[in-house]
Amino acid sequence: MSAPSMTLYYNAASPFARKVLVLLRETSQVDRITLKAVALTPVSPDAEVCANNPSGKIPALRLADDNVIHDSRVILEYLDQQHVGNPLIPKEGSARWRRLTLASLADAVTDAALLIRYETFLRPAEKHWTEWLDGQREKIARSLAYFENEAVTELSSHFDVAAISVACALGYLDFRQPDLGWRSTYPRLASWYYEVSQRPSMVETQPTV
Amino acid sequence: MSAPSMTLYYNAASPFARKVLVLLRETSQVDRITLKAVALTPVSPDAEVCANNPSGKIPALRLADDNVIHDSRVILEYLDQQHVGNPLIPKEGSARWRRLTLASLADAVTDAALLIRYETFLRPAEKHWTEWLDGQREKIARSLAYFENEAVTELSSHFDVAAISVACALGYLDFRQPDLGWRSTYPRLASWYYEVSQRPSMVETQPTV
Repeated sequence: MSAPSMTLYYNAASPFARKVLVLLRETSQVDRITLKAVALTPVSPDAEVCANNPSGKIPALRLADDNVIHDSRVILEYLDQQHVGNPLIPKEGSARWRRLTLASLADAVTDAALLIRYETFLRPAEKHWTEWLDGQREKIARSLAYFENEAVTELSSHFDVAAISVACALGYLDFRQPDLGWRSTYPRLASWYYEVSQRPSMVETQPTV
Repeated sequence: MSAPSMTLYYNAASPFARKVLVLLRETSQVDRITLKAVALTPVSPDAEVCANNPSGKIPALRLADDNVIHDSRVILEYLDQQHVGNPLIPKEGSARWRRLTLASLADAVTDAALLIRYETFLRPAEKHWTEWLDGQREKIARSLAYFENEAVTELSSHFDVAAISVACALGYLDFRQPDLGWRSTYPRLASWYYEVSQRPSMVETQPTV
């Protein structure tokens, strides 16, 4: 077996990095990657990450030829073309746009949850702004209601880019907002999430501090 | 000529919507789209947008079959497959990952510029947080330095997804931070931007309040 040829900059708490870790497992590519754990926030960047991705964000993937690709969506599509199994991102047609739109909505949930985290954990308490927090929470609530009412059957069909993105968004909500109580409001989504959470790819990538 | 079959939710000040408007012009698809201008912020969502995209974000594109796709990246790729000219997103190979990575970096600049806008324009003054603003400004500075030193020749090769994304990011910086003075620090990027700014697609989509 050849040595790993790619390096993934990640953090075990990062929901966007987790999507990549899950896809690597679902497509049997874990052995191809060297994991490089880094710690950073928007107000405390990591120098090595910045040297690889000037935005300072993770995940970033350094390829064997030393080119670096980012962000998570670009990495997911790149890695999905590097295996011989069924694609986790439909190559074309209406399925592609639908699954990528569901993934985009999941990423919007994750972005909102991250902005809430930055507001409540990084920012000094006297500078918290309630309307901002409410706006992000409403974004999450509308999106989860959509998954519950309009998309849960579709999500159940394949554990692909859409399902991985929603699962990682929900996992991040549980990690950072354990008292949110979303399961009682969105029971079908909760049932779907309970099932996909048992997958080894999800169990092995649970967020940790 | 058939009536427009798609509806784009946008705002004339939105840098992410502008990418779509520019691509529509560059690929001669303007006549296929009905534009629906909406006004929104993260703390004052628009009900019609939320009904189409639960995240509440623009751009969102309603297709002829009433399916809605988002976000801007998904819309750009969808529209790039609907015309017969040269693709503005490489279909495969290393060019695809490189151009999408440059576009992702441009989007990170735009995201940082939007967060600065929300902090300085929406948020009450007493809740502004200097470290947050500094972190976003450094993200922009590192990314512009990268475009200047590592990517300006590549950007010059095609006015494609990478170039459109960088041009719209710079246009948004000029629109919201006219005193930033980035041109003297990044003269090659400034020269490239001056040239692409003359394109009708850029002139006709200049941000307005």
